[in-house]
Amino acid sequence: MAGSTTRDRILESALALFNREGVAAVSTHRIATETDISPGNLHYHFKTKQQIVERLFRRFEHRIAPCLEAAAGVAAIDDVWLTLHMTFEAIDAYRFVYRDIAYLLHEYPAIEADAQALVTANLISSREACARLAAAGVLRATIEDVEMLALQMVFTTTCWFSFTRLTPRDARSDHAGPGFAAYYTLTLLSPYVVGEARDYLNYLRGKYLG
Amino acid sequence: MAGSTTRDRILESALALFNREGVAAVSTHRIATETDISPGNLHYHFKTKQQIVERLFRRFEHRIAPCLEAAAGVAAIDDVWLTLHMTFEAIDAYRFVYRDIAYLLHEYPAIEADAQALVTANLISSREACARLAAAGVLRATIEDVEMLALQMVFTTTCWFSFTRLTPRDARSDHAGPGFAAYYTLTLLSPYVVGEARDYLNYLRGKYLG
Repeated sequence: MAGSTTRDRILESALALFNREGVAAVSTHRIATETDISPGNLHYHFKTKQQIVERLFRRFEHRIAPCLEAAAGVAAIDDVWLTLHMTFEAIDAYRFVYRDIAYLLHEYPAIEADAQALVTANLISSREACARLAAAGVLRATIEDVEMLALQMVFTTTCWFSFTRLTPRDARSDHAGPGFAAYYTLTLLSPYVVGEARDYLNYLRGKYLG
Repeated sequence: MAGSTTRDRILESALALFNREGVAAVSTHRIATETDISPGNLHYHFKTKQQIVERLFRRFEHRIAPCLEAAAGVAAIDDVWLTLHMTFEAIDAYRFVYRDIAYLLHEYPAIEADAQALVTANLISSREACARLAAAGVLRATIEDVEMLALQMVFTTTCWFSFTRLTPRDARSDHAGPGFAAYYTLTLLSPYVVGEARDYLNYLRGKYLG
């Protein structure tokens, strides 16, 4: 349908603009111009910028859901690596969400409950991942360790890209790439990792810290 | 001097408003109203909102400097606890800085170099803290561990309060308080802590996780 195509094009333009310039700086007028449609046509599809933001947040949830599902089913350390990589790629594709979260919560308070629900879902799947790894003998960790590790992992996936904008550029390692982000998150587990899973961590360290 | 007093009052109003409502939402007109002065009088002291933001950022640097100095001189795990607590209190007092950092970097690109310099200074003092603890036998950690721990600690002090807005309220523990934040940061060190310093961590765990 032509209608749904225009809708998709609007959302794609808005996502690119939000990611590049920040939600605060982008008007619906600007989104219409970038989509090559009239402001009236945009208004037909989305009455407010808030509706566009909420629709993109739904897409972000949809994109990240399989990552959380995969995380809850990990059995080995390289599974964790893969799901972290997928998660960071999803967050990077919708990077405006967590980067501009302070602005979003202030402008659109309705988003708070959804954002908290997403973090809670992430906590549950991360806890499940750590508990499975402990049960499989990959991690040597108490229930309290697992709880704290899950919190650390969720904090990292949520906020890492915001932080990298404040770290000075480093020629050796690209802190802002999904690969380094996933490696950094795995180092949170590393003191608890036992057995041959350590070899895999050493391999990654060689790859990312050179 | 009356002039400097008005200036201070403007900065205090601006800090309270920025912390409460976000930098994006607060106009200079609003700051003048809150300070109980005319917009013209405010304009005499600060030509733009950017000048107010920059002045407050200077004060934030000034407030956090002794925390970084203390961190670089720690000798035991309770010193780390104390400096982390001080650091989180400073960040909480100027909470708009890291919470609204995406907006600040977009609106006032000149602030980027200063924000990166502050994170770098924090990295250097955290690395020094971890290295001193390792040398004192409080931590069992390699040079690579120390490097990664320092990065984790700086990431946490910079981004923790932003993250807590996304965690569901929990009756048991106040994630958003400086005490829990400092405890959470210490748990990053805990797998490396050896000897009697472990008792202190257990004491804190009892205090914050009940």
